[in-house]
Amino acid sequence: MRDSTKRHLDVVLRLLRHRAYANAYNVLAKLHPADIADLYSYLNDEEKAWFAESAIKGGQLVAIISELGAEHISEFFAIVPETVLFEALRQLQPDDLTDTLAALSPERQEIILNKLGTARRQETSKLLGYAPDTAGGIMNTDFVALPETMLVEEAINQLRQQTSTETFYVYVIDKNERLVGVVSFRDLVVSAPAKSLAEIMKKDPVSVEATTNQAEVADIIARYDLLSLPVVDTNYRLIGRVTVDDAIDVIEEEATQDIYRLASLSAEEHVSTPILTAASRRAPWLLINLGTALLAAGVVAYFQDTISQYVVLAAMMPIVAGMGGNAGTQSLAVVVRALALGEIDWTVGARVILKEVGIGVLNGGLNGFVMAIIAWAWYRNLALAALMFVAMIVNLVIAGLFGALVPLVLGKLRQDPALGSSIFVTTATDVGGFLVFLGLASIFIKILLPV
Amino acid sequence: MRDSTKRHLDVVLRLLRHRAYANAYNVLAKLHPADIADLYSYLNDEEKAWFAESAIKGGQLVAIISELGAEHISEFFAIVPETVLFEALRQLQPDDLTDTLAALSPERQEIILNKLGTARRQETSKLLGYAPDTAGGIMNTDFVALPETMLVEEAINQLRQQTSTETFYVYVIDKNERLVGVVSFRDLVVSAPAKSLAEIMKKDPVSVEATTNQAEVADIIARYDLLSLPVVDTNYRLIGRVTVDDAIDVIEEEATQDIYRLASLSAEEHVSTPILTAASRRAPWLLINLGTALLAAGVVAYFQDTISQYVVLAAMMPIVAGMGGNAGTQSLAVVVRALALGEIDWTVGARVILKEVGIGVLNGGLNGFVMAIIAWAWYRNLALAALMFVAMIVNLVIAGLFGALVPLVLGKLRQDPALGSSIFVTTATDVGGFLVFLGLASIFIKILLPV
Repeated sequence: MRDSTKRHLDVVLRLLRHRAYANAYNVLAKLHPADIADLYSYLNDEEKAWFAESAIKGGQLVAIISELGAEHISEFFAIVPETVLFEALRQLQPDDLTDTLAALSPERQEIILNKLGTARRQETSKLLGYAPDTAGGIMNTDFVALPETMLVEEAINQLRQQTSTETFYVYVIDKNERLVGVVSFRDLVVSAPAKSLAEIMKKDPVSVEATTNQAEVADIIARYDLLSLPVVDTNYRLIGRVTVDDAIDVIEEEATQDIYRLASLSAEEHVSTPILTAASRRAPWLLINLGTALLAAGVVAYFQDTISQYVVLAAMMPIVAGMGGNAGTQSLAVVVRALALGEIDWTVGARVILKEVGIGVLNGGLNGFVMAIIAWAWYRNLALAALMFVAMIVNLVIAGLFGALVPLVLGKLRQDPALGSSIFVTTATDVGGFLVFLGLASIFIKILLPV
Repeated sequence: MRDSTKRHLDVVLRLLRHRAYANAYNVLAKLHPADIADLYSYLNDEEKAWFAESAIKGGQLVAIISELGAEHISEFFAIVPETVLFEALRQLQPDDLTDTLAALSPERQEIILNKLGTARRQETSKLLGYAPDTAGGIMNTDFVALPETMLVEEAINQLRQQTSTETFYVYVIDKNERLVGVVSFRDLVVSAPAKSLAEIMKKDPVSVEATTNQAEVADIIARYDLLSLPVVDTNYRLIGRVTVDDAIDVIEEEATQDIYRLASLSAEEHVSTPILTAASRRAPWLLINLGTALLAAGVVAYFQDTISQYVVLAAMMPIVAGMGGNAGTQSLAVVVRALALGEIDWTVGARVILKEVGIGVLNGGLNGFVMAIIAWAWYRNLALAALMFVAMIVNLVIAGLFGALVPLVLGKLRQDPALGSSIFVTTATDVGGFLVFLGLASIFIKILLPV
């Protein structure tokens, strides 16, 4: 958000807290609906009623509904008078209407759909039938499709009579309604009026099917710098289009998902998720982590005798494991992100793993050397210094190996490479780290013991 | 990348390995330059020469240069014959040319700029002068600006004579060259030819200055669903525009940066970064982490006497610290992402922190309870079970507190909320976890000791 917008929203909030509703409205009226919608989550009940009134008064109800977060839809609809609400819903773009309804219970969806009129109801029901994370779930159905035999001047005349506002391309179809080309508005403007669309169109445009995953849809739009991507059925008939602004939403959503999954969070959580819901969604991940932590604790318990003979080991233990966890997270982040952006896949897996293992040797050597010096300075024990050196290298190699291997294998198995991978990797570095460090210590315990 | 594209690239690679160059070229010629460019990093020297030849032969050299990763530019330029190369560079879009040159050494930049001709050299030098992560650094200068007094039909005639391909809007300027409005190609097509641009334009379009940070530029384009955003100087004169495809690149770059910073990686690293460079970029972070791990080790060393009296504590120790680290990462990821997407800021900080602390109490209670039962089942020691319960709650509260506080404070100080925050947070949970667990254990050591 721009600083100027933030300041305006702050002013509105301060005016509202002083119940200066008329002044607040005057500031609000100058803002973009996307910014106005952001205000909603900061309001109390009285202010929410004012918010709904202002949206109606300012003629921005349609725009604000389409910008409002899914978590607020149900509550907001209860505040807006029913006739005004339905008037607004009828004006929403098909994809926005679908997103809005998807935020409501199936019963509320039914009630609203029945009041929308047959054409709108059928269209929306069809869109609601597509999985929300597919091309069908994010596409819009208000595209412009014209026959390939139409002349440029005819096309321009026809477009003058249409009211769609979000169009950048005209899709060109053959007599069987199959998509055969695309013409930009710019092409229409600069082409000779007597040419046919077939003559000026870009042939065989990239398209996707309704079932294509939204991440792939966004990737295609980003990769080929498209403003919108046509969606076709199995007979190559045009059924909708995904616009670049929806692709941006998907890219942000997928990036959030990557970050969340690496941090063992469910993708549904949001900063405004109520505390009990948020806690209960994080709990399963923490319980899984507790299980893997017990595994690591079991390894330590197995070497209790060694530790009780030389208790310095207890202090050194978390260093080796912690460094492994850190290095593993580095490898994991690089590989997960490269997989997400489609830069690598399983076919180059061996090379990627080898590199991460190599980095483990190098940085394990460096940190092991530094740690060996510190251990020697601290305890004047050369054997302990050597032990730290070797354990650090081995654990950073484990970190690189699993940090690259786990997401690559998950990707190969057509799972999300980020999902649960950080738990796998930290388990490997914890268990591996303790096993190597304490295992070596128990073998060389006689040398370690101070004379 | 689409599966079909991936298959095509696999076929090309296989043909190349059998030195079936002509066949490989036939497959390659059907692909989009963005996909062809992806092939480069998989090729050996002989194949790279073939790649350059194919790009020239297919007339795709310009497009491929603009899609090639910055890390390959210097090498690729050495393969392409000089006259062909300069011909291609002259045809590159200004922003692509700037990006390409930015990948070269200042000496090489100079040589190339001098051969481009005065106009092109001046324009490119100016663009190279903007910081690469600002609006000036990512903007394009090939916009269309027309005076507000021009008629629609005059505008259309003028546009017919221009050759720019990436334009979606016409910017409207007043007699002092200040930006006053914007007209889409669609508006031009559907408006009466005798109207003036001032009559049909959208007034006071959103704009940014050349120094605006690229993250804010991308946020504005995403927030207001724009196809391009005008860049103005301090006198509100139009100097360029940032297009939505560049905004997408920024959004992906910023998301990568968030993920990398949370994983303690430098933003410059890439999956194809050579191993020595990658290792040396990760090393400082690991050394910092080693420092904080020593802090935690110091805490453990301080309680060595307690551990040597009851060595079971050594096995339980990593559980409390590890769970804290995990919960802290969860809080951190939610808060960092919400800050990055502009959903929260310091003003609601207290509420966010309170929520994360609350989640710490709840999930600390749950996991502490489970752990207490396990500890009791394992060692039949009620005091140890109680200790695990209390230590888990306290450490998950520490995790929530620091997981929310650290990024919020960094953001308030105008630093990147993700930068270094995971090291702060894991230090807090490691040191805090050991301190609470071993501190409590040393106080209650008499009760803990098995009778």
